[in-house]
Amino acid sequence: MIIGKVVGTVICTRKNNNLVGSKFLIVDPMEKMGLNAGRIVAVDNVGAGINDIVLVATGSAARVGCDDMNAPVDACIVGIVDDPQKIVLID
Amino acid sequence: MIIGKVVGTVICTRKNNNLVGSKFLIVDPMEKMGLNAGRIVAVDNVGAGINDIVLVATGSAARVGCDDMNAPVDACIVGIVDDPQKIVLID
Amino acid sequence: MIIGKVVGTVICTRKNNNLVGSKFLIVDPMEKMGLNAGRIVAVDNVGAGINDIVLVATGSAARVGCDDMNAPVDACIVGIVDDPQKIVLID
Amino acid sequence: MIIGKVVGTVICTRKNNNLVGSKFLIVDPMEKMGLNAGRIVAVDNVGAGINDIVLVATGSAARVGCDDMNAPVDACIVGIVDDPQKIVLID
Amino acid sequence: MIIGKVVGTVICTRKNNNLVGSKFLIVDPMEKMGLNAGRIVAVDNVGAGINDIVLVATGSAARVGCDDMNAPVDACIVGIVDDPQKIVLID
Repeated sequence: MIIGKVVGTVICTRKNNNLVGSKFLIVDPMEKMGLNAGRIVAVDNVGAGINDIVLVATGSAARVGCDDMNAPVDACIVGIVDDPQKIVLID
Repeated sequence: MIIGKVVGTVICTRKNNNLVGSKFLIVDPMEKMGLNAGRIVAVDNVGAGINDIVLVATGSAARVGCDDMNAPVDACIVGIVDDPQKIVLID
Repeated sequence: MIIGKVVGTVICTRKNNNLVGSKFLIVDPMEKMGLNAGRIVAVDNVGAGINDIVLVATGSAARVGCDDMNAPVDACIVGIVDDPQKIVLID
Repeated sequence: MIIGKVVGTVICTRKNNNLVGSKFLIVDPMEKMGLNAGRIVAVDNVGAGINDIVLVATGSAARVGCDDMNAPVDACIVGIVDDPQKIVLID
Repeated sequence: MIIGKVVGTVICTRKNNNLVGSKFLIVDPMEKMGLNAGRIVAVDNVGAGINDIVLVATGSAARVGCDDMNAPVDACIVGIVDDPQKIVLID
């Protein structure tokens, strides 16, 4: 997974039927985090919002995170780090 | 997912049988978006076209997005952002 | 998917039993194409050859493209762009 | 897989129900290792801790590594290299 | 898939039960090969060793390559290029 900050939202008027009602958040990976990841759009399933620090799962795990294997999503927010002090780094 | 702009089309005369009838669009990821993604070819399933800003799902989610688990695709357009103002970024 | 040019072949004498009879082609992604992809080895299933411009699907889609979910492959050629003019780019 | 060092931990108070009880460790890939991987968050299932050198599986293999196909995870620690001398490199 | 050279081995004393008996080899991708891939750890299933030039499948294909869908692996050696002249490149 990667840790990132929610920096935006995106709304698609026309979309796949299985995405109706989904909330799309734009996540900016934390420094050094992810495969030199750029920003990604993730479906939110735990009530995250702008500025939240979140944990994002990508790939087929995203459909598991959405509780909907028919949702064509490849990134899903699966946790919220509500206190930055709960990210402990030794360097 | 990633947000990108449709910048082209590609037609394959000889192709896998399960791709017959599929429309292939070339998508250029939005700045800072995606895993330093370069351009990708995505199957369109929501009626997108040149210059549209679209939401693309990759990996096994793409087959879900095409409603055809037998289609050998790894990227699928799953939404159209018809109004750029529906992409809200805090920075 | 990515578009690329077939720039080589590779033969493995000793290989997984489910790959016996498979043809391996080395594909160089088109400029700006793919996740900063380097070259990849793809199984050919549509009759491609050296210098052909091809469409490659990666990930689990590759096994679908080979019509063999038991083939340990993660990239498969699923289309041939036999006329470069069938790649239309607006920039 | 990649080899990396556990350099941190992260705790999410609000998270997907299937992640309750999971331990999240931040892994920094060994030099030259991984797809130019940045750091990743992996679920620990073998008792790893800070400073341990670990083997991480990513993608759908991570759910297999957690013995829980319903856990929305895309990276899982599947081994601990308890003696650095057990990493032998010819260069 | 990618072509690479086996440049090392790694042994994990503590590991996931489904990896007991697995042989882990460190593979350095051939120049220009792979998604700017760094080195990866792959399970060997075809009898490869140090200095061998090998074909590696990644993602869910790796579990197929190991003949064990319960093995938490995301990279598997599926072929050995025993004669470098069997890699033919036109440039």
